[in-house]
Amino acid sequence: MTSQAWKEFPPPLSDEQLEILVANIKDWQLTHGSLLKLVSSDEDSTVLAQPVGACLFPTLFPRQLFEQALDLQKTYDKLYARVAEDEEWLYSTLKGLIETYDLARVLWGIHQEVEREGYVQDVVLGIFRSDYMLDANTESVSTSEEILLKQVEFNTISCAGGVHSNLVADMHRRLQRSGAYLPSDPNLETINISSSSLPPSHTLSTLTTGLVAAHNLYGPPKSPNANQTCILFIVQPRNFNIADERPIEYALWDQDIPAYRVIFAEEVLAHTSLSPGRELLYHPPSRAGPMEVSVVYFRAAFEADEFDDNGRKARLLLERSRAIKCPSILSHLTTFKKVQQALALPGGLRRFLTEDEAVRIASTFAPIYPMDESEIGMAARKLALSSISSKSYILKPSLEGGGHNIYGEDIPRFLSRTPKNKWSNYILMEKITSPAIHNLSMSPRGFYRGPVVSELGIFGICLWKRDENTEGRVEITQDLNPCWSFKTKSASVNEMSVVKGYGCFDSPALVDQSIFSACCLGTVKAVEHSGRRSL
Amino acid sequence: MTSQAWKEFPPPLSDEQLEILVANIKDWQLTHGSLLKLVSSDEDSTVLAQPVGACLFPTLFPRQLFEQALDLQKTYDKLYARVAEDEEWLYSTLKGLIETYDLARVLWGIHQEVEREGYVQDVVLGIFRSDYMLDANTESVSTSEEILLKQVEFNTISCAGGVHSNLVADMHRRLQRSGAYLPSDPNLETINISSSSLPPSHTLSTLTTGLVAAHNLYGPPKSPNANQTCILFIVQPRNFNIADERPIEYALWDQDIPAYRVIFAEEVLAHTSLSPGRELLYHPPSRAGPMEVSVVYFRAAFEADEFDDNGRKARLLLERSRAIKCPSILSHLTTFKKVQQALALPGGLRRFLTEDEAVRIASTFAPIYPMDESEIGMAARKLALSSISSKSYILKPSLEGGGHNIYGEDIPRFLSRTPKNKWSNYILMEKITSPAIHNLSMSPRGFYRGPVVSELGIFGICLWKRDENTEGRVEITQDLNPCWSFKTKSASVNEMSVVKGYGCFDSPALVDQSIFSACCLGTVKAVEHSGRRSL
Repeated sequence: MTSQAWKEFPPPLSDEQLEILVANIKDWQLTHGSLLKLVSSDEDSTVLAQPVGACLFPTLFPRQLFEQALDLQKTYDKLYARVAEDEEWLYSTLKGLIETYDLARVLWGIHQEVEREGYVQDVVLGIFRSDYMLDANTESVSTSEEILLKQVEFNTISCAGGVHSNLVADMHRRLQRSGAYLPSDPNLETINISSSSLPPSHTLSTLTTGLVAAHNLYGPPKSPNANQTCILFIVQPRNFNIADERPIEYALWDQDIPAYRVIFAEEVLAHTSLSPGRELLYHPPSRAGPMEVSVVYFRAAFEADEFDDNGRKARLLLERSRAIKCPSILSHLTTFKKVQQALALPGGLRRFLTEDEAVRIASTFAPIYPMDESEIGMAARKLALSSISSKSYILKPSLEGGGHNIYGEDIPRFLSRTPKNKWSNYILMEKITSPAIHNLSMSPRGFYRGPVVSELGIFGICLWKRDENTEGRVEITQDLNPCWSFKTKSASVNEMSVVKGYGCFDSPALVDQSIFSACCLGTVKAVEHSGRRSL
Repeated sequence: MTSQAWKEFPPPLSDEQLEILVANIKDWQLTHGSLLKLVSSDEDSTVLAQPVGACLFPTLFPRQLFEQALDLQKTYDKLYARVAEDEEWLYSTLKGLIETYDLARVLWGIHQEVEREGYVQDVVLGIFRSDYMLDANTESVSTSEEILLKQVEFNTISCAGGVHSNLVADMHRRLQRSGAYLPSDPNLETINISSSSLPPSHTLSTLTTGLVAAHNLYGPPKSPNANQTCILFIVQPRNFNIADERPIEYALWDQDIPAYRVIFAEEVLAHTSLSPGRELLYHPPSRAGPMEVSVVYFRAAFEADEFDDNGRKARLLLERSRAIKCPSILSHLTTFKKVQQALALPGGLRRFLTEDEAVRIASTFAPIYPMDESEIGMAARKLALSSISSKSYILKPSLEGGGHNIYGEDIPRFLSRTPKNKWSNYILMEKITSPAIHNLSMSPRGFYRGPVVSELGIFGICLWKRDENTEGRVEITQDLNPCWSFKTKSASVNEMSVVKGYGCFDSPALVDQSIFSACCLGTVKAVEHSGRRSL
């Protein structure tokens, strides 16, 4: 069975089955907000939206590695909370960036300014997302032991995709229940995707629970001017991705917690102020009296171009306030890839974790090097400049989240155009050789049928309390059970960008590693050159 | 206060408040499926959708009349169940139509054919909607007693708008809670719309409960070939309005009841069959074995052009089956306006209801006349042909649901172009003089601010069992508490068509009649000539 198993999931469908499946998916997405807003159509009285890219079937994924990623998350949460509270280590790691990159300098400057005045809020809410891909680390995958989980990046601000993934996972589970994934020919031996193969997603409720926990910890309003607390979502203007944010706001209202969107930076400056006790007061345009802000949840303020004068002012005002930030400035700074790379240096993790914890975390690190003038950095530069060895690497700017990466043989040319004193603002990461699996997807760009690779994001949601005396060893006070997101793209595309139509939201169909190995072998050999084609 | 009360609801908003309200509404609609599908954009891999027209604020409505409409519904349910089972009365009422209108003839023919063979299912599920407008019946409304509830029509097949209304009502309630309806100036005396002014809508759950009740009454599969039962939604192809149908299907799945959409008539013929015991078997394209259909829920098969040869065959097959129909053919036939008109004749109701019930029902009838050659009909023809008196009337075809009406002074010209032997296929109804209220709405056509009138639809959901011995006096065996829909349009537009952008989904803000009267007086006098204009 194994030799042809890859052909059997997704099972072959008749044209009519496929047509019905596609109609069912589009209608489900339209009626559940699994959409992207077409911002350019956002006229006064109407707006257009269309379904976000989605896989037609869940994508096979090894159950053991899915569970490994979930199991690791609380250790990751502790690690990044500790990194955020270890100012000394963080500064020495980011020093080079702070000196040469505007965004790092601005953020660090805000931290310093608040520190001089004294922080009035010790509690931090972390909503993290650790992204993984599967790594076969070899051209052929013949046994399950050869597939490992490798971390792509760790995000600590504005972690997106949780609601979208929740929705697509719900959809796949519903489609499975309705029999949509059964083959037209009942005699076909196929991989049985039962409901227990499809893990339920609790991402929306978990994100909400985290915000509620922080809100409750904040307690009643402290300012005499406010008689109610609320949560602020700091958001970007003209946002096409409201479907990933609004449901969290609505879920808070369902728990009687007022939640408001405030656009960064203009509306922050126009509608918030600090009380004498540095409570953050929100003055909703629709109400007379101010409300006191318990939690500031950033879904904006992470891109360099958001930090003009107003951006800096707004971020400073929020950081100075008593509201619990998600994330704090220091926690935001840990998202830079320079931190990921520094933790991957030999012994890098032992400052924060026990030996056992460090080993388990390090097992998910792909080889990742600095591009500075250290010994390792100089070796990395050599790898990056060679037209042959560079093929196995990705050059990533240390600052931003996803995107802006330079892949493989583009690296030498890119470095030749970049001033040498900026090279250390990049890190060099070995490409992950992800085993490909067969699937079908659809997006506004069209249909795709062929080999795909997936990215698993594990959300860690935790609260900790800053304490001068435990620098580098801060303890998490509340850590929710992790939840996940899942994205899938054509194996032939480098970037996992759902927005650009290269990637799709998806959910994993958990199988034994032996079944997974059998399927990806087949897939790689059979269809890796088929590329995009219409259904 | 009363003299300026109309100005105060909706309360005056600043430009910024209005902008935020509009953004909140659009995002809420996008994330909750309060949308219309742009069918023309339904390409293979994507589709566009946009928010369905909605009022920015709930519209004032007299609480007492809202409650009156709800209170009447179970009597209406009984009335229409009895009409459906009174074959003799129904035939004599529709005889003229059956002889001259294809759709009536086809439907009656199907009934006769099944009757000859013998019906195998006695239970009928009714999902009715009785539509009302407010009638001031005078140019000025100075006291509350002068405003009455008048029935526009009674629908017994494919009653739509329930889910849309449920969504917009949910949205209005959420906006109210978030303070979006408070005036920018807190010192303004305004009509306080509290959450208790906004009745919650239970339409989606009630429709679902009705289908579940019928499904449970049907019981386990009777055919040895099927091991599971399911509900079929009979739907139209290329349907832009899936957002009003799909949520019911999903709610059934949430109760572990399989529900499938089958397009009328082609998919009915391709995927259903009758067992020897006349169980209706559904052969889903995605499964091998057939399922037995417990309930057939029509959201199609009510327009004349759906009844070509295949349409007739498909409808006959469904009617012959053991599945519980919503509606049965006879119950479908009661939706013709000819029935509404016949019931409004002096004594028309007493065949079906007690004197007390008849009085209460008749109080909601607007003057409505036949256009046949009876004495009343000849008087009605005279009214309709006069260029002066016709202004107060609407000429409605007896067959279809909404639309296809001829209004006021268009009637004489229309009749002059219509062969006299077809006149009796119309009924003449006195125009309802609805008091106008101030509101704002938005739709893909633009913004509207000015006088509006609303239409209240009361859904009645009931089960009854046909019994030869109780003809005309059949008893309802299960009657759910009624739920409602609510639509609002510019006072200057005749037709309440949300699809064409003239009307919007809405919810009522229930107030005392005295407040309502004060507000509508103001509105009519102040802005009735302002017409459409952009915000």
